[in-house]
Amino acid sequence: MTEDEALRAANQAYYLAFARHDAEGMARLWAQDGVSCIHPGWPPLFGRDAVLSSYREIFRNPLQDEIELGAETVICAGDDGRIVCIERIGGSRLVATNWFRRVDSQWLLVHHQASPLAAGPAEVRTSATRH
Amino acid sequence: MTEDEALRAANQAYYLAFARHDAEGMARLWAQDGVSCIHPGWPPLFGRDAVLSSYREIFRNPLQDEIELGAETVICAGDDGRIVCIERIGGSRLVATNWFRRVDSQWLLVHHQASPLAAGPAEVRTSATRH
Repeated sequence: MTEDEALRAANQAYYLAFARHDAEGMARLWAQDGVSCIHPGWPPLFGRDAVLSSYREIFRNPLQDEIELGAETVICAGDDGRIVCIERIGGSRLVATNWFRRVDSQWLLVHHQASPLAAGPAEVRTSATRH
Repeated sequence: MTEDEALRAANQAYYLAFARHDAEGMARLWAQDGVSCIHPGWPPLFGRDAVLSSYREIFRNPLQDEIELGAETVICAGDDGRIVCIERIGGSRLVATNWFRRVDSQWLLVHHQASPLAAGPAEVRTSATRH
């Protein structure tokens, strides 16, 4: 498995844990130290305990929409890797950055931030920028 | 100057270049490779050229609001450093992550993402989380 594939697998594992409301699986994906997390609209969270607690809070919500993942872009250099992707969730779209650090040959999350993607003009700008 | 101070100085330089609409100053702050940038509502941008072009576009807008910076949190490990901070801009608040890599003893930006901070409940959650 290339590093690119290993990072994509770690990213898929994150969304699988989210979809399954699997708090223990989520805990295994995050690094011990130096973590930060910014859920949409939330103030920033720092530290493993605060971040894992936030996922438990989200998982307790029975109305939590499912996330469909798309447009993954991988940027990897040494032990540092990030995936920027689009989350489709409940009819809206978010841009998510999932940042990983390689620890003992395992890619662990150190940062997550998801922010709303505007509709309309943003689509035009995407086409102009990416093609 | 400690690494923490050096990172804060690099972060201040970013907001100073933004406030002055200084495209050349902005260009000096970004790394050559592996950069990504997610402006509020925009699709993600990848690569130095696309990112610097986006700032030139923003700087051409005479109605661009000023940014007031607050609540900086620094997370630094080796050549990898990030600052998560609050941007007050035109009456609204954003959570920004500015991610730096140390290259030849200079901290250069490799990633910026700014996302809206919800009012009201988020404030309550901040108090509950941080204190």
